[in-house]
Amino acid sequence: MTAKKYLVEFIGTFFLVLTVGMTVINPDAGTIAPLAIGSALMIMVYAGGHVSGGHYNPAVTLAVWLRGRCPQSDVLPYMGSQLAGGILAAMAVLFLKGDPTVMPQEVGIFPALVAELIGTFALAYVVLNVATAKATAGNSYFGLAIGFTVTVMAFAFGGVSGGAFNPAVALGITVMHLAKTANLWIYLLANSAGGALAAVAFRFINPEDK
Amino acid sequence: MTAKKYLVEFIGTFFLVLTVGMTVINPDAGTIAPLAIGSALMIMVYAGGHVSGGHYNPAVTLAVWLRGRCPQSDVLPYMGSQLAGGILAAMAVLFLKGDPTVMPQEVGIFPALVAELIGTFALAYVVLNVATAKATAGNSYFGLAIGFTVTVMAFAFGGVSGGAFNPAVALGITVMHLAKTANLWIYLLANSAGGALAAVAFRFINPEDK
Amino acid sequence: MTAKKYLVEFIGTFFLVLTVGMTVINPDAGTIAPLAIGSALMIMVYAGGHVSGGHYNPAVTLAVWLRGRCPQSDVLPYMGSQLAGGILAAMAVLFLKGDPTVMPQEVGIFPALVAELIGTFALAYVVLNVATAKATAGNSYFGLAIGFTVTVMAFAFGGVSGGAFNPAVALGITVMHLAKTANLWIYLLANSAGGALAAVAFRFINPEDK
Amino acid sequence: MTAKKYLVEFIGTFFLVLTVGMTVINPDAGTIAPLAIGSALMIMVYAGGHVSGGHYNPAVTLAVWLRGRCPQSDVLPYMGSQLAGGILAAMAVLFLKGDPTVMPQEVGIFPALVAELIGTFALAYVVLNVATAKATAGNSYFGLAIGFTVTVMAFAFGGVSGGAFNPAVALGITVMHLAKTANLWIYLLANSAGGALAAVAFRFINPEDK
Repeated sequence: MTAKKYLVEFIGTFFLVLTVGMTVINPDAGTIAPLAIGSALMIMVYAGGHVSGGHYNPAVTLAVWLRGRCPQSDVLPYMGSQLAGGILAAMAVLFLKGDPTVMPQEVGIFPALVAELIGTFALAYVVLNVATAKATAGNSYFGLAIGFTVTVMAFAFGGVSGGAFNPAVALGITVMHLAKTANLWIYLLANSAGGALAAVAFRFINPEDK
Repeated sequence: MTAKKYLVEFIGTFFLVLTVGMTVINPDAGTIAPLAIGSALMIMVYAGGHVSGGHYNPAVTLAVWLRGRCPQSDVLPYMGSQLAGGILAAMAVLFLKGDPTVMPQEVGIFPALVAELIGTFALAYVVLNVATAKATAGNSYFGLAIGFTVTVMAFAFGGVSGGAFNPAVALGITVMHLAKTANLWIYLLANSAGGALAAVAFRFINPEDK
Repeated sequence: MTAKKYLVEFIGTFFLVLTVGMTVINPDAGTIAPLAIGSALMIMVYAGGHVSGGHYNPAVTLAVWLRGRCPQSDVLPYMGSQLAGGILAAMAVLFLKGDPTVMPQEVGIFPALVAELIGTFALAYVVLNVATAKATAGNSYFGLAIGFTVTVMAFAFGGVSGGAFNPAVALGITVMHLAKTANLWIYLLANSAGGALAAVAFRFINPEDK
Repeated sequence: MTAKKYLVEFIGTFFLVLTVGMTVINPDAGTIAPLAIGSALMIMVYAGGHVSGGHYNPAVTLAVWLRGRCPQSDVLPYMGSQLAGGILAAMAVLFLKGDPTVMPQEVGIFPALVAELIGTFALAYVVLNVATAKATAGNSYFGLAIGFTVTVMAFAFGGVSGGAFNPAVALGITVMHLAKTANLWIYLLANSAGGALAAVAFRFINPEDK
């Protein structure tokens, strides 16, 4: 029975996007929202990694599949569970914030594409090396490394692209009006490309690790 | 002799609630109080986990008991030790702050119930997976994951419910006048429900892990 | 040859007190100085723990000795190395800050005694459990737990006592004029008592761990 | 084939310097830029350590070579990859920030030399002990310890020297106009001396660890 894996992906992505919305809209967390958001990913990776791998991100699922550590039959159900978790979290945020007025971020298309590509590459590159490489098997740092990659990249690129690095987060921030619907393609394209590029880099760097 | 386990639960909850009060009342820590509070839980989980399991939270004790990793004879003594630690810490804070004037937080009942339910679910879900699952036994990240779940949820929900996720913390913040006595039932109800729900989710996700 | 252990204690305490002074005087780090200071302890515990145990604190050396994990012949040399490291760091800070004008903190004697006692108890209690207990041997979290205990206690008690929890730090902040010379006894007394009390608590909690 | 090691060094240094520039120029991250920068190093050490050792810093490569854990044939290619990564990252930052106006930091030469020497010593001392010592082999904390050494030292010394502790970072901040070209020698000299001194200290402290 694989439903348990999809439930874990749903729960983890729900808490990731919930934290994004709750800390970025009318912020309590202020300038350290990236710390809260990356930590949300960290705790869910540690909690669910042993069941589903703890992707919580369609771009990561793409990268892990290309690297050969995600069964093809899981790819679409994983992505569906992640997107559903992101949407439900966005709706929960809108309810808990009392249907807030949110001004979507203005982004430059080309810089945003570059920022999302680089940031998602970093995230998938870290995931593949700390959570799927034979040479690092059994370590206790995988969740810290993965979560804090989002923290670092969000500190670096939040002002450029919003810092999604994840199509499920991109969908969530679009539902919450933090990002414009017309910009959703930026994330889908750049996040997918970043994930795929990381898989290529991983295979070059770890040629013996099939 | 089991008194040592109860002492560990008392000490850990004391330091957790002490940190809540010292960083939230007339704050020195400012917007990063959730970082201090989650870290307080983290250090006490690492220090006492090998003796008592490091619950420091009646909702966690409930969840661990329902999951089958806490002897029934320990449930009430654990909860009593935790509540006593929380009360003593609250009194220590009032003394050290010089009997401060504190305005209790205004919360909406329904949003607060939802926030405390979701936050406690996250906390107990992480605890069960990183500290009681066979698949993660022997890891070094359990305290980091558990402590930072409180950090994340407090960043997310501090403005909605105060961010207790723990009946012993709820009692402590009530004694310190950070929360209204009339709202104490919100925490007791939602925290218990969140812990129980996490035990159900854990059993579904880890069916082979009895 | 044991000089290497004393050198490690000297280096670690030097960097701890250096970070205290550089982040608290004319602060760059602002409200997150406790994060920097606790992290300084963390990195030095990880770097030097395998050589000297990574105490960097006479109160911790006292506690570890009472618990039976520090040879009696090392106690005074450890303390001397720690105090020397603290003094040299304080002088380095005064040089690098350009002989700054510093107003020593006003503290209430009784609250400061309580805060230093409780904070040092927490620190030594965590050290003994994560770095000397048989049940936690071989873990990778000892430095994180120990360093962040100082972070947590400094967030909680910085405004009450300055948050030394360590006679070498107390001496350093006195040399840097952050604390009054007339108050030095508060730290020496309360830190020693806190360390000794933690050793008693550890022995009660871990009766089988000689 | 060793190109994979050089690519890993290039990627890691790229993300380190990218994070420096994005969080320090027209800051989004404000006073917690050192947290983002140290975390960038941490995640890249965890991701690439199993391939290249995760130096990302010519001063660290120098120290690891002097300690006997870096083949002489790798020294110059490592340094070249690191400097190339730093330069490319600086150019990416200038593009993403829209060719910003940056005022280079004024530093005092002698204090800056001392700060860079001490900070680089700390970094290389931590690296050698947590990532190359036999006594700590197999630990999961090496990336946390190494990354947070940069966080701590940048909090402590950012106002004195800019806090590079790394010739590749020094080159990057010079390209981004955060540091003056006329001061580049300060970093090259003090960082190299700090790394070499750490190798000497490591050999004294770990005499049996060849």
